[in-house]
Amino acid sequence: MSTIDTRLIDGKQHAAALTARVSAEVAQLDREQGQVPGLAVVLVGTDAASEVYVRNKTRQTSSVGMRSFAHTLPADTSEAELLALVARLNADPDVHGILVQLPLPPSIDSTLVLDAIDPAKDVDGLGQVNVGRVTLGHPALVPCTPLGCLLLLEAELGSLSGLHAVVVGRSNLVGRPMSQLLLNADCTVTTAHIHTVDTAAHARRADILVVATGRPGLVRGDWIKPGATVIDVGITRIPTGSGKTKLVGDVVFEEALGVAGRITPVPGGVGPMTIACLLSNTLHAARRQWAGRNTGRAA
Amino acid sequence: MSTIDTRLIDGKQHAAALTARVSAEVAQLDREQGQVPGLAVVLVGTDAASEVYVRNKTRQTSSVGMRSFAHTLPADTSEAELLALVARLNADPDVHGILVQLPLPPSIDSTLVLDAIDPAKDVDGLGQVNVGRVTLGHPALVPCTPLGCLLLLEAELGSLSGLHAVVVGRSNLVGRPMSQLLLNADCTVTTAHIHTVDTAAHARRADILVVATGRPGLVRGDWIKPGATVIDVGITRIPTGSGKTKLVGDVVFEEALGVAGRITPVPGGVGPMTIACLLSNTLHAARRQWAGRNTGRAA
Repeated sequence: MSTIDTRLIDGKQHAAALTARVSAEVAQLDREQGQVPGLAVVLVGTDAASEVYVRNKTRQTSSVGMRSFAHTLPADTSEAELLALVARLNADPDVHGILVQLPLPPSIDSTLVLDAIDPAKDVDGLGQVNVGRVTLGHPALVPCTPLGCLLLLEAELGSLSGLHAVVVGRSNLVGRPMSQLLLNADCTVTTAHIHTVDTAAHARRADILVVATGRPGLVRGDWIKPGATVIDVGITRIPTGSGKTKLVGDVVFEEALGVAGRITPVPGGVGPMTIACLLSNTLHAARRQWAGRNTGRAA
Repeated sequence: MSTIDTRLIDGKQHAAALTARVSAEVAQLDREQGQVPGLAVVLVGTDAASEVYVRNKTRQTSSVGMRSFAHTLPADTSEAELLALVARLNADPDVHGILVQLPLPPSIDSTLVLDAIDPAKDVDGLGQVNVGRVTLGHPALVPCTPLGCLLLLEAELGSLSGLHAVVVGRSNLVGRPMSQLLLNADCTVTTAHIHTVDTAAHARRADILVVATGRPGLVRGDWIKPGATVIDVGITRIPTGSGKTKLVGDVVFEEALGVAGRITPVPGGVGPMTIACLLSNTLHAARRQWAGRNTGRAA
C-alpha cells in the first residue's frame, strides 16, 4: 500500500505572518492617527500554567506595539471585586480588549464574569453576545483557538465549502465555536463528543478532522481518511519515562503520518496561532471602537 | 423485503397536552398569586400569512388565560418607530414576552430589532443573547419550532444521548438552533445544507433526521435509514392540479411510510407544537421575571 507524503502545517510560520501583519497595522495606526490598541489581561490566583500564558500574552502584546495592561489579583479575590475591575476596564478608553484568564477560582462564577465584559472588548469571544453572533453567522469577536484553526485551514485549503468537517469535542472554548465557524464556512459539520457511539467511524468520513478533547493518543492512524486534513488542538504534557516530559496532542502523530494529507504538529501547530489571533482580535476591536461601532470583527 | 410499521407522531396531541399544562399553571398562578403572564405580538405590514399566524397566536394566548397584546403597525413604519415600541414593551411590567413577527419589511434591520428585545422577554429566542446561551448550553429562551421538535423527540424516544442526528437546513430560525439543542441533548449532530455534497448519504446514517429546508419533496424514501425517526419541519402549500392546494412537507411522506420508524405528518406534526412552545416560553419568562431573575428557561 502506498502511503501519502503528509504535509506538516507550520503553525509557527502562519502565526508569525499574522503577527507581522498586526504589528505593521499597529505601527501605521500609531503613525497616522496617534492611536494604539490596548489589551488588558486579568489573572486571578497563582496557577503556574496560567501565569505562563499571561506572561506570553503580555509580552507578545507589547512586542507588536500595543499597550499591555496586566492585572494580577490574589486567589481570594471576590466575585464582586473582579466584576468591579471588569467594569473599570469596560469604561477605560485606553483598553480595547479584555481577557480574563481561565480557569477562575471555584468561588467565582466564570459565566457571570465573561458576560460582564463589554461585547465590543470581549477579545476572547467567550461571552454570550459574541457566541450568539457567531452562531447566527453575524460579525463577531471569535474565540482565539478555533479562529486560529480556521485560519490555518483556509490558508492550507482555500475555500472549505462542501467539505465534511468532523469536530471531536464540544467544549465552549474550542469544539462548539469550531463547529460554528466551519458551518459558517459552508462545511458539512459533524460534532462528536464523549457520548458519541463509534467516534472512529465518524472521524473516518472527515475531509477535515479537528480534535479537541485533551485525551492524548485518542485518535489513531486508522481513524483518519487517507488525504484528510487533521487539526490537533490537544496539548498535554506526559512523562517520557526517563524523568523527562514532552508535549503531545490528541492524535497519535506517528500513525497519522502517511495517512493524513496535512496535519498540525504538537507543539508548533495550533498553539502559536492562539496568541496571534488574540492580537488580531484586539486590533480589530480597537478599530471598531475608534469607528464608534459596537461590534467586533473576526480576523 | 419486510416493511416497517411506521408510527405517526401526533403533533396535535402533544401540543394539546403541553397547552393544557400551561393553561393549568396559568390558572393556578392567577388564583394563588393574582398574577397573569402577558404576551405582546408585533406585526408590521399586511402580509397575509403573517396575519394568520398573529391571529392564531393571540387567540391561543387568550385561550390559556394569558393577557394578549397585539400591536399592528403599517408597512411604512420606520425602524426607529418599531424600536421605540420594543423599548416601551421592554419596560411594561404587564408584558412578559415580546414576539416580533417575521419577516419585517426590507427597510427595517431585523437583527437590530430582535436584539433590542429584552433577553428576558425574548420568547422567540432569536436575539443574540439567547442564541449565545443555547450555544453555550446555558439556560435560555429557545426558539419555538426547534424546541417543539426536541419535545416531540424526547416524548417519543426518551433519552436522545448517543443517537446520531442529522439536521438538513441551517437557518437561524430552525436548523442552527435545532443542531444546538440536539448537541445539548448529547446527540452526535451533523448539520447539512445547500453546500453539502451528497446530503442523501448523510441522511441515510441518521437515527434522527430533522428536515427544515422549505423544499417540498427533497427527502425521498431511500434517504431514510430503516427505523429512523423523521421530523419534517417543512410546510409548503402546493397546487394539486384541480385548482385546489394542499400542504406538504420536505419529505415525500408516502415513500417514508414503511421505512421510517416514526415520522411527523404535514400538517399536524411540528406545526401545532410551535405555538404551544411559545405559550410555554411566555409562562416561563413570566415566572423568571416575577422571581426577579433575568434569564429565561426552556419548556
